[in-house]
Amino acid sequence: MSNMAKIFDAAEVAKHNSPNDCWVVLYGDVWDVSEFLPSHPGGSKIILKLAGRDATEEYDPIHPPGTLEENLKPSAKLGELDPSTVSKPSPDAAQKEQKEGPPNMQSLLNLDEIEEVATKQVSQKCWAYYYSAADDLFSKSFNNLVYRQVLLRPRVFVDCTKCDTSTTLLGHEVGIPLYVSPAAMARLAHPAGERGIAQGISQFGALQVVSNNASMTPEQIVEGSLPGQIFGWQLYVQKDRSKSEAMLARINKMSDKYKFIVLTLDAPVPGKREHDERNQNVGASLPVSSGVKTADEPKRPGGGGVGQQLFFGTAADLTWKSTLQWLAKHTTLPIVLKGLQTHEDAYLAAQYAPQVKAIILSNHGGRALDTAPPAVHTLLEIRKYCPEVFSRIEVWVDGGIKRGTDVVKALCLGAKAVGVGRAALFGLGAGGVEGVERTFEILKAETETCMRLLGAEKVSDLSLKHINTRAVERDIYDGHAGLEKLGLWVKANL
Amino acid sequence: MSNMAKIFDAAEVAKHNSPNDCWVVLYGDVWDVSEFLPSHPGGSKIILKLAGRDATEEYDPIHPPGTLEENLKPSAKLGELDPSTVSKPSPDAAQKEQKEGPPNMQSLLNLDEIEEVATKQVSQKCWAYYYSAADDLFSKSFNNLVYRQVLLRPRVFVDCTKCDTSTTLLGHEVGIPLYVSPAAMARLAHPAGERGIAQGISQFGALQVVSNNASMTPEQIVEGSLPGQIFGWQLYVQKDRSKSEAMLARINKMSDKYKFIVLTLDAPVPGKREHDERNQNVGASLPVSSGVKTADEPKRPGGGGVGQQLFFGTAADLTWKSTLQWLAKHTTLPIVLKGLQTHEDAYLAAQYAPQVKAIILSNHGGRALDTAPPAVHTLLEIRKYCPEVFSRIEVWVDGGIKRGTDVVKALCLGAKAVGVGRAALFGLGAGGVEGVERTFEILKAETETCMRLLGAEKVSDLSLKHINTRAVERDIYDGHAGLEKLGLWVKANL
Amino acid sequence: MSNMAKIFDAAEVAKHNSPNDCWVVLYGDVWDVSEFLPSHPGGSKIILKLAGRDATEEYDPIHPPGTLEENLKPSAKLGELDPSTVSKPSPDAAQKEQKEGPPNMQSLLNLDEIEEVATKQVSQKCWAYYYSAADDLFSKSFNNLVYRQVLLRPRVFVDCTKCDTSTTLLGHEVGIPLYVSPAAMARLAHPAGERGIAQGISQFGALQVVSNNASMTPEQIVEGSLPGQIFGWQLYVQKDRSKSEAMLARINKMSDKYKFIVLTLDAPVPGKREHDERNQNVGASLPVSSGVKTADEPKRPGGGGVGQQLFFGTAADLTWKSTLQWLAKHTTLPIVLKGLQTHEDAYLAAQYAPQVKAIILSNHGGRALDTAPPAVHTLLEIRKYCPEVFSRIEVWVDGGIKRGTDVVKALCLGAKAVGVGRAALFGLGAGGVEGVERTFEILKAETETCMRLLGAEKVSDLSLKHINTRAVERDIYDGHAGLEKLGLWVKANL
Amino acid sequence: MSNMAKIFDAAEVAKHNSPNDCWVVLYGDVWDVSEFLPSHPGGSKIILKLAGRDATEEYDPIHPPGTLEENLKPSAKLGELDPSTVSKPSPDAAQKEQKEGPPNMQSLLNLDEIEEVATKQVSQKCWAYYYSAADDLFSKSFNNLVYRQVLLRPRVFVDCTKCDTSTTLLGHEVGIPLYVSPAAMARLAHPAGERGIAQGISQFGALQVVSNNASMTPEQIVEGSLPGQIFGWQLYVQKDRSKSEAMLARINKMSDKYKFIVLTLDAPVPGKREHDERNQNVGASLPVSSGVKTADEPKRPGGGGVGQQLFFGTAADLTWKSTLQWLAKHTTLPIVLKGLQTHEDAYLAAQYAPQVKAIILSNHGGRALDTAPPAVHTLLEIRKYCPEVFSRIEVWVDGGIKRGTDVVKALCLGAKAVGVGRAALFGLGAGGVEGVERTFEILKAETETCMRLLGAEKVSDLSLKHINTRAVERDIYDGHAGLEKLGLWVKANL
Repeated sequence: MSNMAKIFDAAEVAKHNSPNDCWVVLYGDVWDVSEFLPSHPGGSKIILKLAGRDATEEYDPIHPPGTLEENLKPSAKLGELDPSTVSKPSPDAAQKEQKEGPPNMQSLLNLDEIEEVATKQVSQKCWAYYYSAADDLFSKSFNNLVYRQVLLRPRVFVDCTKCDTSTTLLGHEVGIPLYVSPAAMARLAHPAGERGIAQGISQFGALQVVSNNASMTPEQIVEGSLPGQIFGWQLYVQKDRSKSEAMLARINKMSDKYKFIVLTLDAPVPGKREHDERNQNVGASLPVSSGVKTADEPKRPGGGGVGQQLFFGTAADLTWKSTLQWLAKHTTLPIVLKGLQTHEDAYLAAQYAPQVKAIILSNHGGRALDTAPPAVHTLLEIRKYCPEVFSRIEVWVDGGIKRGTDVVKALCLGAKAVGVGRAALFGLGAGGVEGVERTFEILKAETETCMRLLGAEKVSDLSLKHINTRAVERDIYDGHAGLEKLGLWVKANL
Repeated sequence: MSNMAKIFDAAEVAKHNSPNDCWVVLYGDVWDVSEFLPSHPGGSKIILKLAGRDATEEYDPIHPPGTLEENLKPSAKLGELDPSTVSKPSPDAAQKEQKEGPPNMQSLLNLDEIEEVATKQVSQKCWAYYYSAADDLFSKSFNNLVYRQVLLRPRVFVDCTKCDTSTTLLGHEVGIPLYVSPAAMARLAHPAGERGIAQGISQFGALQVVSNNASMTPEQIVEGSLPGQIFGWQLYVQKDRSKSEAMLARINKMSDKYKFIVLTLDAPVPGKREHDERNQNVGASLPVSSGVKTADEPKRPGGGGVGQQLFFGTAADLTWKSTLQWLAKHTTLPIVLKGLQTHEDAYLAAQYAPQVKAIILSNHGGRALDTAPPAVHTLLEIRKYCPEVFSRIEVWVDGGIKRGTDVVKALCLGAKAVGVGRAALFGLGAGGVEGVERTFEILKAETETCMRLLGAEKVSDLSLKHINTRAVERDIYDGHAGLEKLGLWVKANL
Repeated sequence: MSNMAKIFDAAEVAKHNSPNDCWVVLYGDVWDVSEFLPSHPGGSKIILKLAGRDATEEYDPIHPPGTLEENLKPSAKLGELDPSTVSKPSPDAAQKEQKEGPPNMQSLLNLDEIEEVATKQVSQKCWAYYYSAADDLFSKSFNNLVYRQVLLRPRVFVDCTKCDTSTTLLGHEVGIPLYVSPAAMARLAHPAGERGIAQGISQFGALQVVSNNASMTPEQIVEGSLPGQIFGWQLYVQKDRSKSEAMLARINKMSDKYKFIVLTLDAPVPGKREHDERNQNVGASLPVSSGVKTADEPKRPGGGGVGQQLFFGTAADLTWKSTLQWLAKHTTLPIVLKGLQTHEDAYLAAQYAPQVKAIILSNHGGRALDTAPPAVHTLLEIRKYCPEVFSRIEVWVDGGIKRGTDVVKALCLGAKAVGVGRAALFGLGAGGVEGVERTFEILKAETETCMRLLGAEKVSDLSLKHINTRAVERDIYDGHAGLEKLGLWVKANL
Repeated sequence: MSNMAKIFDAAEVAKHNSPNDCWVVLYGDVWDVSEFLPSHPGGSKIILKLAGRDATEEYDPIHPPGTLEENLKPSAKLGELDPSTVSKPSPDAAQKEQKEGPPNMQSLLNLDEIEEVATKQVSQKCWAYYYSAADDLFSKSFNNLVYRQVLLRPRVFVDCTKCDTSTTLLGHEVGIPLYVSPAAMARLAHPAGERGIAQGISQFGALQVVSNNASMTPEQIVEGSLPGQIFGWQLYVQKDRSKSEAMLARINKMSDKYKFIVLTLDAPVPGKREHDERNQNVGASLPVSSGVKTADEPKRPGGGGVGQQLFFGTAADLTWKSTLQWLAKHTTLPIVLKGLQTHEDAYLAAQYAPQVKAIILSNHGGRALDTAPPAVHTLLEIRKYCPEVFSRIEVWVDGGIKRGTDVVKALCLGAKAVGVGRAALFGLGAGGVEGVERTFEILKAETETCMRLLGAEKVSDLSLKHINTRAVERDIYDGHAGLEKLGLWVKANL
């Protein structure tokens, strides 16, 4: 802005480390963030930890370009940091940091191995954010285990020379019924970020739902994607509706790429993700200026994780009619409702067709409410109580997918598409674009092998006849039929 | 008593270490307890272990003030110990004892972490008493596991901006449907004792049931509590009814604080708690005068734990009519019956309304009878066989609560209040008043998150529709319907 | 026999170590066992391992007195061994052998702890024989686990001041409904042997069934027992019926002590107990004369365990009519049939009352056929299909009992008596008579605590109402009702 | 061929290591395989790894004699290698390779112990091929676990002196209802190969199905077999039908030995066996000429395992009518269809009697499709939906057999024969012919013990009455009966 930026040295910046006088360095510039502190989505504490220091390394991978400019006044930029005044970390420390690179992606045989590699490649903070789930991680692991409870029923003497995984989703042709679930902040895992995911999946014809909290702009992510490559955009409605409306307007303009809006409903308030929170506490033990006083923030038990920061500003007051009507005013893109977990809500959603074109059965990867049901339960509930839903809207699912057999089982149960969230991020973390590619290569190959061995040539051939879900059926909600009162039983037994 | 107390030196006291001539030092005074020995609730053995020595450290945390005076004649006090004659432990030993203090309570994210910290902070004896449960700890762990078997059913598109955990219990407004179960001897865990628990929960508006075996007097415990803070008093009816009557009279006088009586029924005789017993055996290897002869006590297999001592004198002959009539004569406070474990007994209790205003479904934290059913089973039994109970009396539950989701599930099943016993004690042990506060802060926050994610604004919104209990329903008692005889089946197969 | 016994030195004896020329030393005497070799119940191999050496240590604890004389001709005794010619084991080796003695029995709190102590006290061979069970030990562990699947239903407000475990068995008053199952060779565990068990249980008024393969004579075992102490004698019918008839005649003469005959049916051929067999193979690596040639025995896979040896000579051709008629000719004592595992056989047995007075539901402690059902299953089967059996004969059970709650659950299910086999042997191994006493002291105390907490004063008060067996009921045999054919189902789905 | 073979030295051969110029040494001869590369069943990569080197050690154990001549032109043989020009491995390396020999087979007591020994005896590559199964090995382990879920029902008072395991299969007398499943490449485990298996089982009268991918010719395998010893030949139909027709013609000529054709249907495409694939990747790190360029092969995720190589050329277009009609033209031997996993296919197969004489319920040892059902499920499905199948054709099963009790349970469920695949190979690997013998000796003895203890004298005595399959019955496919729609349920609950 100014012709001659003022130059600060590091010692000077370091003095401004209190709530009322808080400076940070970002990309070489010195910013006064004192005024901004109380409105930071992640709370003031997380900035104060970095007060008086260069915060670029922590800031960059979780904020898309433009964030600074959107949130700070030009006058808050005070000048530039003199890099020569910054003390360097000792070479020993630097060397310690150097990690061994990842192995050849082709040597990884399944998604667990890819996660294992990613766990070693990404930062502890990144791992904690991706790995974490609510409370005791029961739903996270049950999401996957429930697929093991479903047995396959292979048919013999069926010609399986050909195998075609293509299908249509929301009327668009796709190469495989897979989509990338909206997962925030891909640049935490790898500089290629969300665009890297788009590149990695491009050859497979899978969909990608871009997170409301992506670490790149929606424009950056679709840049360079293949013709016909399809994206959806995830909407967390903001308390300040005008912010959401502005974003919708931006997305509407890219309707050649963004073909639908995913409205997320399963996390109106953040779940309790202790791995994520704990990791931020670890951060607290970093050398911070001892003079820092904590602002008088309301206590938040388990409050400092990356996940909680992202929820800041999200509206908790959505309702069927009002929200969908408001949405209709701001976009003509089809709506996909994400996070349904009961047949009752699936039934209700179907009443809102055709505005609502699909629902995603999801418990947010087990990250919202622990012991929430896996999508397989909800699929079976719908089958039992309101199967007409399947003919009125598309039903997608995510959560717990690790194998091609999982994909096929979901399809047999009636799902039109199957999402992977952590798997895409771990693929990215393990090997960037190539890691994402390998993840989808494995899933596609496993899906094809499974279809062939079942005796199914096309996705539409898959049906309930190909699976035995009896072990799951006995666990799904049945309106407490088992508690039906038994007449005069009790008095007879006293 | 006397103007000039006689002064004894330690060597002299040490000689009186046999059943017929047994002295101990308490708070600096020398007492002759030879006559009292046979009537000690914990048996004579436990005193004989300390015969001829200063027993204050062992005595103090488990006896409320006034106990000595109530049980010993004034003449038993022989004089004072000359402290200079006591040999000091070596500085090495003292140093070894010094424990690292607890971490910042705010860094603890869940109840398991608090228990972990408490386990390190409290004495081995204290830990064993709190941790222990009957036999193989099956019921103790099942109490918790059964909540994992219940799945939640979150509804979407429900406005969850507001969340209110307040409710009424026995007609009183409370901030949260939680109560502290009557748990004995809090001073074993921390000097703040039961009053510390009262302080820790005061801001949350939770109830506290004071144990019959508290380590402080009922008067001490409520001292300084907030206006409107509500207590109940637990009654173990004594064989010598006049003792219980005296206590009831004392409680009646504090009816501004003590609003109800909890009559405990699930432990008419003590359960077998091996961790607790084993710990006392460990004590036996302490350096005791080898000249001690054991009094001719009847052998009690597994007899020496703290738990067993507390039961001494408890009446085992209670019955519905006689006991409740007797109680009615001695208090007008509402009665809460604790320890019901079958729908039959719940049904019977409801016949005694309005004297009986509530029941607590409890298996005594798994401490009484191993493989006794968890409260969730009994709730479902009542739902199945006599749901009218819920409208006639309040049904409270305890046992196994570790998460806000557990609290919410119990409420959905029809419980009006949910108790935590060990959790409060471990909170106290981990960090005193602040530890209790953190425990309830976590439980309240988790409860609110769960309510919000289910789409429930008020406690009264929670219902069976929010949970899937099918995996539990198939395990509850059904009067052995599965054994219904199948006609002439057998002869046909011989 | 001879006035002047011939004296052999060890080197001379050592030469006779082949199948056709096989000497062993027993109790100082030198015997020529070449002729006896082919008829040894345990096979010739086990003797050949000891050929040319002193076999007393191996022989003694598993053969009751009189065995030598019954099986060898007088002329086979060649003379005496000159003890001075035997090389002593080095003092080092001797010292290594010396084990630490057992702890005070009163410090052991449950049956698992007693087994743990016994495991350290007894020889590896003894442990392997007692511990072992068929194949993969599935039934052995399921025997116990199935009791954990049964939940108790404690009733409140029941006067439990008194508790009486006494009952009647086969018309005799007993102090507790427990019996010692017939378990072979107690002297392997402790020199006190089967008589030690009799002494250990005498004060509790429990029954003892003496094994057909006891390591003491039936006369020795009952010697010194209390007036009113009751024994049964276990019969494995021998191929050579006259041997069994002789034993029955011997038992008939002691009808003041032996009040019934237990005919064992669940092991007409030995099960495959690999721990036991493996242990014998270990023995094979002991230093044996390399010149020994193995006799041409038929190969027996898994053939050399103690268990297998005991079965030698047992008849496998028993049938309902013929065997019971034969027995009626040789004893008027009531018959108890042991080893029934189906309701069909229980039903049949009841047709043979009053000769048959009781049945024992048993899978031989899991030692005969792996994956055979536990007694709890069979009890429930009888309840379901032919409950009239309970009124015609007594039903006893054994297998898997570790806790007083297990005892009570069996009684609630209709069992009249509950047996412990390994528990008695491990008690003996842990501490001789005192160890057995402690075992029963614990079981009795646990049983009483359980009865009291259930609200049952007498054994006859216990009933199905006190237990929830639903989790087991769904697993018991139901005649494959789940396979009922569903009409034209299949063709519609092809 | 030529009178004077040209002599090459190793250095010269080593230069020919690229896709377009690829030589290998086999049995001392130098071959130019450049032309053959693209048509190698295992892909070109596996040969290129060995390009320029002696490949005999890798080639030999997986190719039967005659393979070279069938696939390469005579002109491809260039000459001989001068052995003196080959550098020897250092003696250290050689010594490291030397393994301790196996223990005495008679000391091994069960199939798990034999597998453990084999695991140490065979090469890593061999172990990986035998051990591997699809994906997460769920079906592999469930195949076995499901037998543990079946309980036995022993009957008493049944004469079990005699026990006869003989039966008839496809009209032929056999000594035991066991067969060796077609398992490829036995010479990987032991030089005795498939003929060694034939020798090992000869005395038991078991059947052997010879793998289509055997490492010996069908002629070699039956050479020296006992009169009356019966073999089947497994057919994987080749894309190039003429190859299969030629093989059938060869088998037809040996109809004194080969009595039936087993058409394998459960693996029309290879499953994903990661242990196997990973092992081949390990091989990739062997010292290979760095100049090797990989041919432009299509990427195969998880593509290089032994299993995948074997599938090359297998037809995936089989159908009921066309394939069976084609087969009828080329052989009159009875057909056994292997790999059926649903009652629907069993029902269909029965329509093709008498050409089809038996079916094998099999999920390919869990190697094809993970979470495919175990044979026990399919047996129960047939029992439930189309029991008439059992009377029209023979039903055989394989997968998961480890114990005689498993064999007996399968027979009780209606199986006529029970197959073991890995067990035979591990027997061979553990101890050659003797190891196979020991494997079958154990299985036979365990089977007899089980029959005797159940009270069954003959195979035909075994029936559903001897087993309790309730725990399995509730898991088998039931056409999703649990999802039956419940009227207007849903609307009432919104």
